[in-house]
Amino acid sequence: MNKTWGIGIAGLGTVGSGLLDILSTRPNFAPAGGVAKVVGVSARSRSRPRPFDISKLAWFDDPTALALSPEVDLFIELIGGSDGPAKAAVEAALKAGKPVVTANKALIAEHGLELARLAESTGAALVFEAAVMGGVPAVKMLREGLVAEEVDSLAGILNGTCNYILTQMENTGASFADVLAEAQRLGYAEADPTMDVGGFDAAHKVSILAALAFGCAPNYAAADIEGIDQVELLDIRLAHDLGYRIKLIASATREEGGGSVRVHPTLCPLDHPLAQAGGALNGLFIEGRRIGRIYLQGPGAGAGPTAAAVAADIADVMAGASRPVFQRAASDLSQMKAVDPGHRAGKAYVRILVRDKPGVIAAISEALAKAGVSIDSILQRPVDASGVVPIVLTTQPASEAAVADAVDHIAALDAVVERPRMFRIART
Amino acid sequence: MNKTWGIGIAGLGTVGSGLLDILSTRPNFAPAGGVAKVVGVSARSRSRPRPFDISKLAWFDDPTALALSPEVDLFIELIGGSDGPAKAAVEAALKAGKPVVTANKALIAEHGLELARLAESTGAALVFEAAVMGGVPAVKMLREGLVAEEVDSLAGILNGTCNYILTQMENTGASFADVLAEAQRLGYAEADPTMDVGGFDAAHKVSILAALAFGCAPNYAAADIEGIDQVELLDIRLAHDLGYRIKLIASATREEGGGSVRVHPTLCPLDHPLAQAGGALNGLFIEGRRIGRIYLQGPGAGAGPTAAAVAADIADVMAGASRPVFQRAASDLSQMKAVDPGHRAGKAYVRILVRDKPGVIAAISEALAKAGVSIDSILQRPVDASGVVPIVLTTQPASEAAVADAVDHIAALDAVVERPRMFRIART
Repeated sequence: MNKTWGIGIAGLGTVGSGLLDILSTRPNFAPAGGVAKVVGVSARSRSRPRPFDISKLAWFDDPTALALSPEVDLFIELIGGSDGPAKAAVEAALKAGKPVVTANKALIAEHGLELARLAESTGAALVFEAAVMGGVPAVKMLREGLVAEEVDSLAGILNGTCNYILTQMENTGASFADVLAEAQRLGYAEADPTMDVGGFDAAHKVSILAALAFGCAPNYAAADIEGIDQVELLDIRLAHDLGYRIKLIASATREEGGGSVRVHPTLCPLDHPLAQAGGALNGLFIEGRRIGRIYLQGPGAGAGPTAAAVAADIADVMAGASRPVFQRAASDLSQMKAVDPGHRAGKAYVRILVRDKPGVIAAISEALAKAGVSIDSILQRPVDASGVVPIVLTTQPASEAAVADAVDHIAALDAVVERPRMFRIART
Repeated sequence: MNKTWGIGIAGLGTVGSGLLDILSTRPNFAPAGGVAKVVGVSARSRSRPRPFDISKLAWFDDPTALALSPEVDLFIELIGGSDGPAKAAVEAALKAGKPVVTANKALIAEHGLELARLAESTGAALVFEAAVMGGVPAVKMLREGLVAEEVDSLAGILNGTCNYILTQMENTGASFADVLAEAQRLGYAEADPTMDVGGFDAAHKVSILAALAFGCAPNYAAADIEGIDQVELLDIRLAHDLGYRIKLIASATREEGGGSVRVHPTLCPLDHPLAQAGGALNGLFIEGRRIGRIYLQGPGAGAGPTAAAVAADIADVMAGASRPVFQRAASDLSQMKAVDPGHRAGKAYVRILVRDKPGVIAAISEALAKAGVSIDSILQRPVDASGVVPIVLTTQPASEAAVADAVDHIAALDAVVERPRMFRIART
């Protein structure tokens, strides 16, 4: 029980820094499994100023060399990125039979199956609580706590940056571009924000959760992804007038023999818990036949929560449970499937900018009727000085293929100024 | 990995029935640990009609004999009750080195420390996910997922029966007694409802969560407990007029060298997630320095969720992790402390029924001032035909001892018809 575990940490950003804080102030934090002692570190720059002293720790320029160091019993990968040095080092550790703790959602979402095979072949643990929802133990909940349940669906807010941007747009009335620039200035968004605002980060995360929930191999490539870069302040306000808030919702559904995964800006009713999760919060609904609906909410990122998740994984590895990486042995995992938009049905919000011409509503209605889509509600705002009017309509439940078809036809109308915006409305 | 585990189940009520359903329909549900095979059962009556056939399972009149049967590798205790046959059987199993899964909150809250010592002496696992929040894995979250965090406080709704009664009173305008009678008729409340409505069940549960959160031995005896039997419809309505909903809140706070635990009807702001968790839902806030605030919500009882929690514990035992029963080895657990009402401060709601006499508000104000309690708001309703008027006031933050002192003085006033009702207002 009192074994000392040599810990190698690759990547010394905010999470690595938070982890060093936990391990130095609470070396005996793991109730079951002895002492975690940092024996070596690796990062891009050795000399970069840091809030802690690394001069007494063995330094490795190459994270793979760190992973393979005989002093290292447990390898922590906090480098990030789906490929490159992170993947090489994780593979080296697993091949050597060393347990790996990682916060790298891109790596697990894109290469989870092959890494699980490798880990299971050498008996090394591969755990990644910190990859999703920061300090909220959603991974452990799906991997262990709900293992006796056949989860049917997941839906949540998994990207704090997008949630912060959407919340700020609503609260301050600033545009997407202005709020993004401010978030970058404050360090809440990356210099290249594509992973976050494009929905790719949320898709990585929900791919991992779906794998655990449905017993699938994670398959980011099959995800249907749309980001928040097309959400305008106008849409946030019109949605609010209709009783909704626009959130970037990552969701997953169990399908026959697998599961499907998607990320979309989605209108949530104002009294829905996900509509009320503002700022950088993350929230997740888990639904199953036996358990009903479980809701989890908490800060989805940040040094404290994420480092606490990494440390919990370290404690878990020390406790010595033997489990497959996902919900079943890698050889038994079923497939994640691409979403079929003709198959999936739901209500939609369509916002159209038109020049105020007689007959335009009739033409729009006709385009919808031709596609077999029924209108649920329609809202036209007064004409402004430019002569351009927004028309917003919500549809009755229709297949996504039919709605897309209708939008194509509306976009082609003479009076329509730009391609209409279509957002899904959450099922409640 | 493919070992077959002989499972003995003592107690065949709704949870036992749900568990038999899981184990018979999904014998390979545990990803890591082989097959769970029910080899024997025990219950009060063998012949009672049940939704499943037990004629092919070995029957034991005595649960201890079941626990000790050589066929049984893992003992499941679903009998309930803090003492008697449940405790005897669990002790026998642990003494024999057999892992125990239990849903028995009274047993763990009242005898957790001695059972943990016993389990740790023989190396047998003792797990109890189903004891708290049904299918929501709150126990696992605190025991494992947040192990690297020093949790500062917990607060939540842990008794679905009380939450159902309070919700129904508000929604239907019926009295506590009428809603309780209806809940008993529907099977939502026990024939003797004392454990639920008296707050004792919630106190058992929060004692267990506090032990896991703070590294304490559970100590139900130190809990400060008040139930919902003193909550009248009048208070629910007056609280609503003030912007609050009354909920039975179980909470726990880390104290120097331990923790303290309490259960009280509490006014929660209407926009607070706990105020919005209606019906039989459970909800829990977990707060810590690193993780910030995490919120969990889900159905707190029922055959499906609770049986899924028991099954997850079975899967966990099979996976073979080695951990202490609570957050530290039994020998290192610190003490749970009694709440000191002079020390704890907060806002309070005080409702007073008075005969409409001149000077009564002045006398009430004076009683509060003498006790050093400042009034935050005051609300007087019109006099009804009986000549009795409710006066409601909320206080500014004050020690609970001072508020109790003021209530004593107000109760002694001539114009006051009955002892004032005092409820705490949640800190947000």
